[in-house]
This record gives sequence, C-alpha cells and structure tokens, in this order.
Amino acid sequence: MIAKRLPKDTIDRRRVEALSDGVFAFAITLLVLTIAQPSNYSKLAGQLLHRWPSFATYVVTFGLIGVMWLNHHTVFSYVERIDHGFYYRNLLLLMSVVIVPYPTEVFGEALQKGAGERAAAIFFGIAVTLNSLAFSWLWFYATKEGRLLNDRFEKTRESPTFLFVAGTAACLASIGVAFISPYASLGIVAAETLYYALDPIAARLPRNGSEHR
Amino acid sequence: MIAKRLPKDTIDRRRVEALSDGVFAFAITLLVLTIAQPSNYSKLAGQLLHRWPSFATYVVTFGLIGVMWLNHHTVFSYVERIDHGFYYRNLLLLMSVVIVPYPTEVFGEALQKGAGERAAAIFFGIAVTLNSLAFSWLWFYATKEGRLLNDRFEKTRESPTFLFVAGTAACLASIGVAFISPYASLGIVAAETLYYALDPIAARLPRNGSEHR
Amino acid sequence: MIAKRLPKDTIDRRRVEALSDGVFAFAITLLVLTIAQPSNYSKLAGQLLHRWPSFATYVVTFGLIGVMWLNHHTVFSYVERIDHGFYYRNLLLLMSVVIVPYPTEVFGEALQKGAGERAAAIFFGIAVTLNSLAFSWLWFYATKEGRLLNDRFEKTRESPTFLFVAGTAACLASIGVAFISPYASLGIVAAETLYYALDPIAARLPRNGSEHR
Amino acid sequence: MIAKRLPKDTIDRRRVEALSDGVFAFAITLLVLTIAQPSNYSKLAGQLLHRWPSFATYVVTFGLIGVMWLNHHTVFSYVERIDHGFYYRNLLLLMSVVIVPYPTEVFGEALQKGAGERAAAIFFGIAVTLNSLAFSWLWFYATKEGRLLNDRFEKTRESPTFLFVAGTAACLASIGVAFISPYASLGIVAAETLYYALDPIAARLPRNGSEHR
Repeated sequence: MIAKRLPKDTIDRRRVEALSDGVFAFAITLLVLTIAQPSNYSKLAGQLLHRWPSFATYVVTFGLIGVMWLNHHTVFSYVERIDHGFYYRNLLLLMSVVIVPYPTEVFGEALQKGAGERAAAIFFGIAVTLNSLAFSWLWFYATKEGRLLNDRFEKTRESPTFLFVAGTAACLASIGVAFISPYASLGIVAAETLYYALDPIAARLPRNGSEHR
Repeated sequence: MIAKRLPKDTIDRRRVEALSDGVFAFAITLLVLTIAQPSNYSKLAGQLLHRWPSFATYVVTFGLIGVMWLNHHTVFSYVERIDHGFYYRNLLLLMSVVIVPYPTEVFGEALQKGAGERAAAIFFGIAVTLNSLAFSWLWFYATKEGRLLNDRFEKTRESPTFLFVAGTAACLASIGVAFISPYASLGIVAAETLYYALDPIAARLPRNGSEHR
Repeated sequence: MIAKRLPKDTIDRRRVEALSDGVFAFAITLLVLTIAQPSNYSKLAGQLLHRWPSFATYVVTFGLIGVMWLNHHTVFSYVERIDHGFYYRNLLLLMSVVIVPYPTEVFGEALQKGAGERAAAIFFGIAVTLNSLAFSWLWFYATKEGRLLNDRFEKTRESPTFLFVAGTAACLASIGVAFISPYASLGIVAAETLYYALDPIAARLPRNGSEHR
Repeated sequence: MIAKRLPKDTIDRRRVEALSDGVFAFAITLLVLTIAQPSNYSKLAGQLLHRWPSFATYVVTFGLIGVMWLNHHTVFSYVERIDHGFYYRNLLLLMSVVIVPYPTEVFGEALQKGAGERAAAIFFGIAVTLNSLAFSWLWFYATKEGRLLNDRFEKTRESPTFLFVAGTAACLASIGVAFISPYASLGIVAAETLYYALDPIAARLPRNGSEHR
C-alpha cells in the first residue's frame, strides 16, 4: 500500500484477482452439474459405472483448469500494475477458460460413442488454441518494453516468451493432427498440459519474494 | 486501516467488493450453461456450427459484463466510504447486472429465428436502461455534496455526471429506436458499450494513487 | 495482524467471510437460472410479459438476501474472534440463506396460480423463521458473557438482543397468520424485511471505527 | 508482507485460499438446485412434504462440506508456504469436495426408494475415502521433514498424522461394511464426520496466534 502515484489507467489488482479467482472457481466446479442422476435404482451399480466418461471428463477438466489457474497466478505474480489493455486481455483469457468444460465434455462423449471424434478433436483443439493465444497476448502486452512487469523481471523476458510461442504452436499442431488422428491430437494436448503443470514460466524467471506469504 | 472514527452507518468496503466480485464472476460465467449439448454425434461438426448464436451470445455477454465490472471498479475506487444508501443502490446495480445474460440470449435467439426481433430489442433496451439508471443513481448518491467520495475528487464531479446522464439517454433512445429498427437499436447499445469499455469515468477524474497495488 | 496469542479454537475471520460472501453471492444470483426461456418467438412480447412473476420473484429474493447480507455484515463487524461454535452457527445461517429462493419462488407461483397459497405461505414462514432463529442463535452465542464481541461493545447487548427475539416472534406470527390469510402473512414478513433493511442492529450499537475502510 | 526471499516455487497463499473458498462456497450451495419445483399447487403441502429427502440431503451435504472446510482451514493455518506439490494435492482435495453432493444425493434417493442401497453406500464410501486420502496426502506432503509447516509446529506432527491414518481407515471400513449393511456404513461415516466436526487436528496442535484476526 505504498502511496506512490500511479498512471491514470491503473486498476485495482486485488479486485481483478478476486474476479478471476471467482471465475476459475465457478468454471472448475461447473461440470459436476452435468453428471446425470441415475434413473433406475435397482440397477444402480451398473448405472454409476456406465457414467465413467462423465467422471473422467470431470477429473480431466478439473486438472486442465487447475493448470491454467497456476499459470495465470504465475503471470500475475510478475505484473507490477494492471491497466485497461491488460484487464481486457485477462477478460479474454477468462472467457477461454470458462468455455473449456464444454469441448472437453463433447470430446469425451464422442470418444465413448465412437462417432464425431474428428470434429470433437478439432473443436477441442480450437478451444485450447484460443486459450493459449489469450495467454500469449496477455504476456506480450505485459512484457512489451517491460511495461507492466516489476523490476526484478528485467531482461529475462525472452525465455518465457519462447514458451508462449511454442505452446500456441503445439495447440495449432493438435488441430492439424486431429484431421489424421483424434487420439494423437489428444495426446499432444495432454503432453502440453502436463508440461505446463510444471509451471514452466515461473521456473524461467527470478522469484519476486515479497509478493508471497 | 487507519483507526479514525467513521460515521455509524459505514459498511466494510472489502466485503461489499467481495460480494460484488462474486456476483460478477457468477453472472459472467453463467451463460456457458445454456449452450446445449450436441444430440447427434455423427453430425457433430454441423451441430457445433449450428450453435454459433449461443457462442456469439456467450462472447457478447462476457464483454458486456466485463465492461460493467470495469466501470463498477472505477466508481468504487473513488468512494471513500460505503453507507446504507450506497449499499442498496449497489445491490440494485448488481441485480441489473445478473439479469443481463437473459435478454442478451433472447435477442440473439430472435435475430437468428427472424421472429420477435422488435420485442427482443425493446426488452434488451429496457435491461441496459435499468443498468444505466442503477449506475447513475449510485453515482448521484455518492457525489451529492461530495458525501462519500474521497478528497482528491473535489470539484471534478460535473464531467463524469454528464456521462451518466448521456449514457442513460442513449439507452432510452435504443428502446425508442427498437420500434423502428431492432438492428439500429442494437447498434446504439453496441456503440455505447464500446465507449464505456474505454473507462470514460476514470479518464475524467484524477487518479487516487494510494488505493492501488 | 497483531501477534497476540489467541485461544486454541480461533478460526481465520477473513476466510469465514470469504466463504460467507461466496455463498451469499451464489444464492443471490441463482434464481436467474429459473426464468424460463421463451418458447415461441412470434409471440415474444406476450411470453415475456407472462413471465412477470419470475421477474418479481427474482427482485424480491435479491432484496431479501441483500438485507440478510447487511445484517450478517453488522453482526460480523462486532465479532472479535471466531471460534468453532460461532463457525457452525454461521454455517447454519448460511444454510438458511441459500434455501430462501426456493420458498420465495413457490410462494410467487402459488399466488399467481391461485392454488396452494396457504401451504406456500406456511412454507415461506418456516423458511424465514429458521433464518431468524439461526441469526438469533449466532447472536446469543457471541454475546453470552461478552465471549466473542470486541471491547467497545460492552453493556449495550440488551438492545439488539431484543431485536432478535422480536424478529423471530414476528416470523413465527407469520406462520400462524398464514392459516388465516396468506396475504397478511406475506405482509408481516415484508414489513419485517423493510425494518431490517434499515440495519437496526448497527443503529443500536456503537461504531467500531477501526474495522472499516 | 515480510520481504524475505522465498523458494522459487512458492505460490500466493491468499489466491489459493480464494480459489478454495470459491470452490467450497459453490459446492455447498449447488445442491439447492436439485430440489424439484412442485408440479401440482392444489396439493402443495403434500408435495413439499414428499420432498423431505431432498431437504435432508441438502442439510447433510451442507454439514459435510462445512466440516471439510473447517479441517481445510486448520491444515492451511499451519502451512508456512505453498509450493506446486501442495497446490496440486489441494486441487485433488477440492475435486473430491465438489463431487460430494452427487453420492450424497444418490444415497438419499436409494434409501428412500428402497432400492440400490448397497451400491449407493459403496459409492458414498468411495467418495469419502477419496476425500480422506486427498486430505492425508496433503498432510503428509506438508509435514514430511517439516517442509511447509511453520516454526511453532515442531515435533507435534505425530499426533495429527494418526488422525489422518485412522480417518482414512474408517472410510475404507465403511466401504467394506456397506456390503453387509448400508445403514451401518452410513453410521460409520456419520460418526466420523461428527468427530471431525470437532476440528481434532487443531486440538492436537499449538495455536499459531499471529495468523488470525
């Protein structure tokens, strides 16, 4: 709470984080609503087992959005101030996060039904590409001329920037591969998600110790 | 946390913001629930493309509520303290925000179906007018005799006040125009939203630097 | 953040407030989901007008929960620390808040349909009585021997305590009156809500100035 | 906000708590959506009474998740810093919390219908076991070599660790017992929940006074 004078278009970071965390929390739990109630209780065990794709989709989406939250947290931990450009790019990112459960569920359904896998894989690939683009756009905006990033960041920009470019390229590749093999496409996204689960952006940057408790 | 004595009806700003941000986060993500699941997976690509109005409504609503959040943030950043009158006007504002996805979706449906466009445009116009009235009421209440605004605000009230009056007038105009042309009515609201996306209230006021991190 | 030693069963106030605000935000916006989409767009205006009870219920519930939030805020602003007993009584209170939209909607439907008004009024009366009881229980627990309330509170306990007793009595009365006239029962609850909208607990207590910003 | 240098993989505790509280708040209120609206208002009283299992499930789930929140709060209050391992284990815990309303509702339905009680009891037992495992994994990770726990914790690890092991064993036992008697299985979980409602982890550890307000 240092009372230094900030540029005119500075937005309260705490409230943007609260909005973002609310959106993430909502998106991460939303899919549980789509698990259908059993209709026949005399065959309950079978009906519950039959719903495994819904449970699997629930777990995958939870993991996917959990990884996105972690990388969102990392980007925000290096941001010194939030201006309008950053706010709207973050809004776009949130928009691409909230939609994630939908293509995930469609993909799961298609794999189970054995129909429409290609379309589902392309749709899923588009969704993760949009997410990756939104992340990249946020990053490039924040780092251009060191605009919004804090002092310790300095000249280490190049390394994480490479991650954003490579990540988006992998997402685009998953769309192309989907035309040949939906499973291979899913594999690319899965591998990328596992990689981002390691929080690679933070690993390439110095730690801003005073931000955290 | 300066322990100065505040008037009796002062409400904890942090909790009002938490409530507001929760409501915004919920409202912004709610529409994703209305995108219907595909019913026929052998024609999946066609079915997903057919849902474009749902996706478009999702994007538009996200943008609309995102712009409202930004202006809400700006108004709050100038408020020195929150009293009961302000709290209830804020509650009214939140009520008008949460309802937004409903008329947005109805408008999108009407345009796609080619039926009921006029009624949908009027309904949409009423919704944004109510939102604009709630914003204005909050503003007039907070600024009257400088009641709740902080010291740096001073005599710059007139300029943003004009924005609230003009904004509400544009919303009312969109209702009138809807009787002639639903598309023109939509155009007015779109233009106004884009204008408010620039955070015009903040642009006309001095920055309260110590509030932000 | 004074590092004084607190009793063993002290719970982090900030997190209890965050949980409570999340629950309030969710409950306050939930009813918007129940407003049915129009089915016939060539008769859109009529269909939207026909939904007025849904809109009315939405507004009433928003107001009801908004008033509950305000009184919840007031009670919390006098609480020095949160222990397990207080936490569970608060949980019970939240439980009675989240359920509110359901009896409100049932009452609205019954009045519109002209059937089941008595049962609906009794059901509604039970819901608000449970809410009032939860509030009272929280209050008595916190004030007994001044257990959890801060220093400025002192000997002013009697005055708000009367409010909790009288409020619960009015709720109970609304159940009894419902057997004779559902409308009179609704009138009692409406009058009580309007009274509590004035934040009467805060009005009877000294202000704890340092808590607020 | 002490500006000491933290290890590279430290995550902002405040934001992890905000995400967690949002998820808890959402999960705790979600079940209210499943209480079906009355269909026949001329027999309203009977229809509402007929819904008692839905109301009972609502109350039980609220209590269950409320107890989980309290124990989550206790674990977090001893954690000095959050790293990636802790974050993902917490994510797994949240995943097991959000799913809770589903098996709870299935169990309630099965008991009421008098069909599928065994399968429902096993399903419910699996869900609480997963939750207990996630809690234990989080605890063992945080306490191993005192990695993430604060200084006052010291050598008191053994006592709460026993709780996690015993708690998980009781959950596993409830699965086994379900094959013989669903009611006995429910009794084990109920007894365990009541025990954890007493916040036994906090009772066995020294209080970290400076964390709370």
